[in-house]
Amino acid sequence: MEQRAHIRKGLFISLEGLDGCGKTTQIKALRCAFQREGKEVIDFREPGCTHLGEQLREIVLHSDSHIGERAELLIYLSSRAQVTDEIVIPALSEGKVVIADRYADSSVAYQGFGRAIGAEKVKALNDFAIKNTYPDITFLLEISVSEALKRLENKPLDRLEKERGTFFQRVHEGYEWLYQQNPQRFVKIPGELEPKEVGQQILKVLKGRGFLGK
Amino acid sequence: MEQRAHIRKGLFISLEGLDGCGKTTQIKALRCAFQREGKEVIDFREPGCTHLGEQLREIVLHSDSHIGERAELLIYLSSRAQVTDEIVIPALSEGKVVIADRYADSSVAYQGFGRAIGAEKVKALNDFAIKNTYPDITFLLEISVSEALKRLENKPLDRLEKERGTFFQRVHEGYEWLYQQNPQRFVKIPGELEPKEVGQQILKVLKGRGFLGK
Repeated sequence: MEQRAHIRKGLFISLEGLDGCGKTTQIKALRCAFQREGKEVIDFREPGCTHLGEQLREIVLHSDSHIGERAELLIYLSSRAQVTDEIVIPALSEGKVVIADRYADSSVAYQGFGRAIGAEKVKALNDFAIKNTYPDITFLLEISVSEALKRLENKPLDRLEKERGTFFQRVHEGYEWLYQQNPQRFVKIPGELEPKEVGQQILKVLKGRGFLGK
Repeated sequence: MEQRAHIRKGLFISLEGLDGCGKTTQIKALRCAFQREGKEVIDFREPGCTHLGEQLREIVLHSDSHIGERAELLIYLSSRAQVTDEIVIPALSEGKVVIADRYADSSVAYQGFGRAIGAEKVKALNDFAIKNTYPDITFLLEISVSEALKRLENKPLDRLEKERGTFFQRVHEGYEWLYQQNPQRFVKIPGELEPKEVGQQILKVLKGRGFLGK
């Protein structure tokens, strides 16, 4: 059971899914939707955004030397701890809308399942890193493993993305596990639809839950 | 209770204590003592030693931007996970002597107590990062807080060392707690003695436990 550690005036949304699922496009649209309502919006990507996070991003995504599985996970967690303290918690206490392009759930899916470190172990580490600051709502943009691989074909790949196929299959299972564990927080959206339609479905859910005006 | 996760043929020694306690001098002497016996010796400092570790060392010790407490701890743990996989475990399985200039215990003392993150929490994170690869013996070079501050006066200080006084007092208490928790593994040596005498006491303990020839 996830617990709330902080009193929030704002709204915390995260987008999750396999690489290529279309998160970035949707975040731009979401930002506009909230800004039209006069809300202040902050979005960030993982790892990165803070000064520390960008330094760690460079190391973890573009290092030529081998990085072990536990070391890699701990770097992601360090970046996440920093962004949580520096950006997420202050913004939420000021009533802002925070949109995360990946957050704690990505580590459960990618490292817990993908790298087989174990979901419960990664969850415990996440709880520490983010001080239980879980999103209010998480949109899982679902695409099939084959669609993810197809979409990535024309993009330059970073270190993580280079390991495909069976790895992506495990990540996919990880997201399904997360969805089962957090039925209130997780909302599945079919990511293979046209981007515009994906956006409409997201807005409909947000309006339905009272997070966005009708 | 610490558990052994790996079959070891080698010997794992760590040196701990407040900054300025004289670890570096003793490590040089220890290295020679084992090499005289024909043993292969590997020593390392924390954070650092691996390619990843040195990159992280640069960030954590010399960054101009603020690093949060949890983010800082997770960087140390990442470096430690990497050095454990890349250096400690392979060396021990090959029968080498590994000497660590700080290891997991430093995080319990400095972050768990010094930064008040909590000893048990840091211990759980350590267990994950090092896969329970604790040293066979840990020498705690004990100096008083006032002696540590005096010894540091003439050295350029890194980021951690700049926070003194009450911080060092908490670290000191952390080491005492570790000593109480691990009476078999921890050996206290009075670090205010002459370096030569400190070295003799260390060698005496190692010989007494059969880790070094008489």
